[in-house]
Amino acid sequence: MADNKIFLSEKDIPEKWYNVQADLKVKLPPPLKGDGSPIGPGDLAPVFPMELIMQEVSQEKWIAIPDEVREAYKLWRPSPLHRAFNLEKELKTPARIYYKNESVSPAGSHKLNTAIPQAYYNKKQGIKRLTTETGAGQWGSAISFATQKFGLECVVYMVKVSYEQKPYRRILMQTWGATIFPSPTTRTNAGRAVLKKDPKSLGSLGIAISEAVEDAVTSKDTRYCLGSVLNHVCLHQTIIGLETEKQLALAGEKTPNVIIGCVGGGSNFSGMAFPFVPRKLKGEDITFIGVEPTACPTLTKGPYRYDFGDEAKMTPLMKMYTLGHSFMPSGIHAGGLRYHGDSPLLSLLVHEGIIGAKAYPQNPCFDAAVMFAKTEGILPAPETSHAIRAAIDEAITCREQKKEKSIVLCLSGHGHFDLASYDAYLKGDLQDIALDTRAIDEALCELPDL
Amino acid sequence: MADNKIFLSEKDIPEKWYNVQADLKVKLPPPLKGDGSPIGPGDLAPVFPMELIMQEVSQEKWIAIPDEVREAYKLWRPSPLHRAFNLEKELKTPARIYYKNESVSPAGSHKLNTAIPQAYYNKKQGIKRLTTETGAGQWGSAISFATQKFGLECVVYMVKVSYEQKPYRRILMQTWGATIFPSPTTRTNAGRAVLKKDPKSLGSLGIAISEAVEDAVTSKDTRYCLGSVLNHVCLHQTIIGLETEKQLALAGEKTPNVIIGCVGGGSNFSGMAFPFVPRKLKGEDITFIGVEPTACPTLTKGPYRYDFGDEAKMTPLMKMYTLGHSFMPSGIHAGGLRYHGDSPLLSLLVHEGIIGAKAYPQNPCFDAAVMFAKTEGILPAPETSHAIRAAIDEAITCREQKKEKSIVLCLSGHGHFDLASYDAYLKGDLQDIALDTRAIDEALCELPDL
Repeated sequence: MADNKIFLSEKDIPEKWYNVQADLKVKLPPPLKGDGSPIGPGDLAPVFPMELIMQEVSQEKWIAIPDEVREAYKLWRPSPLHRAFNLEKELKTPARIYYKNESVSPAGSHKLNTAIPQAYYNKKQGIKRLTTETGAGQWGSAISFATQKFGLECVVYMVKVSYEQKPYRRILMQTWGATIFPSPTTRTNAGRAVLKKDPKSLGSLGIAISEAVEDAVTSKDTRYCLGSVLNHVCLHQTIIGLETEKQLALAGEKTPNVIIGCVGGGSNFSGMAFPFVPRKLKGEDITFIGVEPTACPTLTKGPYRYDFGDEAKMTPLMKMYTLGHSFMPSGIHAGGLRYHGDSPLLSLLVHEGIIGAKAYPQNPCFDAAVMFAKTEGILPAPETSHAIRAAIDEAITCREQKKEKSIVLCLSGHGHFDLASYDAYLKGDLQDIALDTRAIDEALCELPDL
Repeated sequence: MADNKIFLSEKDIPEKWYNVQADLKVKLPPPLKGDGSPIGPGDLAPVFPMELIMQEVSQEKWIAIPDEVREAYKLWRPSPLHRAFNLEKELKTPARIYYKNESVSPAGSHKLNTAIPQAYYNKKQGIKRLTTETGAGQWGSAISFATQKFGLECVVYMVKVSYEQKPYRRILMQTWGATIFPSPTTRTNAGRAVLKKDPKSLGSLGIAISEAVEDAVTSKDTRYCLGSVLNHVCLHQTIIGLETEKQLALAGEKTPNVIIGCVGGGSNFSGMAFPFVPRKLKGEDITFIGVEPTACPTLTKGPYRYDFGDEAKMTPLMKMYTLGHSFMPSGIHAGGLRYHGDSPLLSLLVHEGIIGAKAYPQNPCFDAAVMFAKTEGILPAPETSHAIRAAIDEAITCREQKKEKSIVLCLSGHGHFDLASYDAYLKGDLQDIALDTRAIDEALCELPDL
C-alpha cells in the first residue's frame, strides 16, 4: 500500500513564488482611488513597505523567495500531502483524495506563509512596528509569531466580540508577544467615532481595519499588513500549490482532476490553485472549485464590479466579485469566510471561466468536518470544512458514476480554537439561515458607478 | 545547513515494541493483591483483555506490533524529530538540541500510541465498550479517537472540575463520538457514595478511576483502560525511542548524551528512554532525566515502596516510587503530572541508578515553554514544559562549560487546549507553592507494610 503521507525535504521548499498574471492573456484591472483615478505605488507607501508594493504590481512570472524567509519556512515546511485512505474507505469511492496539510504550521493555518515574508520585508525596510486587524484570529496568530521572529513589535486590533468569545486565540497571540486591543478602541479617531455613537459596540472587521490602518499611517516607523485578498498575499501562498505539484508527482499522479479550497478573501485557494492554472490552459483535465458559505456567496452570487475592500471605504477600489462593502453576512461560525469581496486576481480567473465556485450552508460542512475528524484524525477549522464538504461530494459523484478521479484539497487550518462551534453543531443548535438577497441588493446600490 | 526536521518513511514504523525487562539483571517486583498475596493474569481478566494482560507480564524482548495497529499509526507516524536550531541560537549554546514531536498525533500527544493498540486488542477479543477516566483530557481524547476507529463504544468519566473548566477537551472527545460523564456520577456505587457525602463534589482522578473500573466490571462486554503507569502502556510507547534512534543516526549523532522527558505516570519518558537503556548498560555516555513538578516530586522525594495505584485502593499493589495514594498535590497547571506514584518499570530503573530525575516549580517551566513557543513555534503542553526546562538548563550548562553535547527531549504534546494556564502565567498569577512535606509523611503512613 502507498504511503499515507508524502513528504518533501527542506531543500524542496520552492525558491520562487509564482505569479499567475504572467500566464494570463487578460490584464488584471488596476486598483483605483475612491474617485476613480489611478493609484500609484507611491500612494501605498505610507501603508506597506516598498518591496511588497512592488510585488503587488509585478508582472514577473517568478519572484525569488529570500533566504531568510526560506529559512523561517523550514520550521514547518514543506507541509505534508496526505492521501486520505481512511476517508476514501468510509466513502467507498474509487476517487483518490489528497489533502495538503497547512494546519501543521505553528499558527495552525496557511496564514503564516505570508506573515513570514511580510514581517521580513518590513524589517528589511527598517520598520519597527506592524499593525493589523483580526476577526476569527487565524491571521492575528500568524502575524504575532512572524513579527517576533524578525524582532518587530506587533499590534493587533481584534474585533471585540471575538476578543471576548475567543480568549484562546488572544492568549496565543499574547504568548508570542503581541499587543492585542479589543476594537473599537479609544486609541484612534475611527474607534472613538464608533464608540461615541455606540459605547457598547462589539466591533466589526471593517472598524478594526480602519483602526489598524489609521494607527499605521499616523505612527512612527509603523506599517499595516493584511492576511488575504491582495496580490502579494496570494503570491506568497503559491508555495502551497508548488509543493503539492511535486508531491503529486511523487505519488504517481499525472493530473489533479479536481482542486478544491475554501474562499474567504481567497488566499489559500489561490495559493493552491494558481500554480496549476498553466496546465489547465494547456488543456489538462483540471477543475478548480472555490468553496464559500451560502451566507456570504461572493463568487457564486455577486457581480464582478469595482468596490472598496472595507466597510469604511478607506482602501482603494478593486475590481472583484463583491456583495457590496456594506453587506453584513449572518453570524456563521466560519468567521474567516465572512468577507464581502474576494481577491481581485482570483475574481479575474473566475470571471474568465478558468476557476469555478460553489456554496454550502454550514451544517453540511460540519457533517463533513466530523467525518473527516473521525477518519483522518484532524479536526478542521470551520472555514476548511467547506473545502472538505466539496471534496466529499466530488468523491461521492465518482462513486455514483464509477469514475476514478484524483481530488486535491487544501486543508487550510485546524479547528483547535474553534471547538465552541463544534459544540453548537453537536447540540443541533446551528441554523442555516436563508440568504437575505435584499440585503445584497441594497449593499450593491452603494457601489461606485465605474 | 542540516535539516530542521528529520522524517522517516512509513515503512520505518517499528514492527516490534521493545520490552526493557529482557535486558535487566534485576526482576521487576510483581504486583500484589491488597493483602499482599500474589496476583495472577486471571485476576485481571474482568478488567483488561487477555492480550494486554499477557503483554503486562511478558519477559520477551520484542513484541510484534499487529498490522492493523501499524496501519493506524500511519495516520501520523513516524513522528518528526526536529533539530531545535532556533532555540540553540537563542541560548547561544554549543549543544545540539533535538525534540521528538509527539504533538503531531490527531489527539495532540503521545497518548494515542497506546490508545490505538488498546482499542485494537479489546476489539479483537470481542469487547464492545471501553471505559476510562480522564483529568486534563489528553488520555480521554486519545482513547475517544482510537475506540471509534475500531468501532468500539467509549465512556469517559471526566473529573467534574475539568469537565467544567476544560470544555474544549470535552467537545473534542464528543466530536469523535465518545460519551462523557462529569464524575462523580449517580451511575456507580462509587460515585453515589461520594455524592451522598458531598453533593457538590468536584471529583478527583481517584474517584473517576473507581467509577470507570466499576462500570467495566459490572457491564456486559466492557473493559477498562489506562493511559499510563502500566508495563503494557510503557511498552507501546517505546515506538517513540525506537524511531528516535533511527532518526538520530540519520542526523549523524552517534550517542544521545542526554535524554529528557516529563514524568506523570511515566509513559512518554519511558517510551523515549527504554530503547536506549541497553546502550547505556554497554557503557555509552547517556544520561536520562525524568522531569517532574516540585509540587508532586515522586521520583525525587518519594520512597520506593509497594502502594496502590489509586486513592480508593481498588488497584493491585505495585512497587514504585510513591508519595502515598492519599497524597493530594497542589493545583498546578500540569494536571497530567499530578500523580502520586509512577510506572513500576521506570521506578525500578531509577532505583537501579540507570535513570535519573529532577524536579521544577511551574513558573520556570512556563518561562521555558514561552521561549520554546517563540523560537520553535510549537506551544507545548504544561506537562511537556517540564522537559523543555530541563533541556534548556542542560544546554546552558553546555554553554558555560563549553561542552558540545547532544540533548534529546520528548515533546509529548501541544498546549492548544491549555491556554488558560498560559494566560495565568502571562498575568503573573501563577504561584509556586512550597511543598507540604508533612502531607507526604502523612500519606506515606497509610502505605501497607510490605
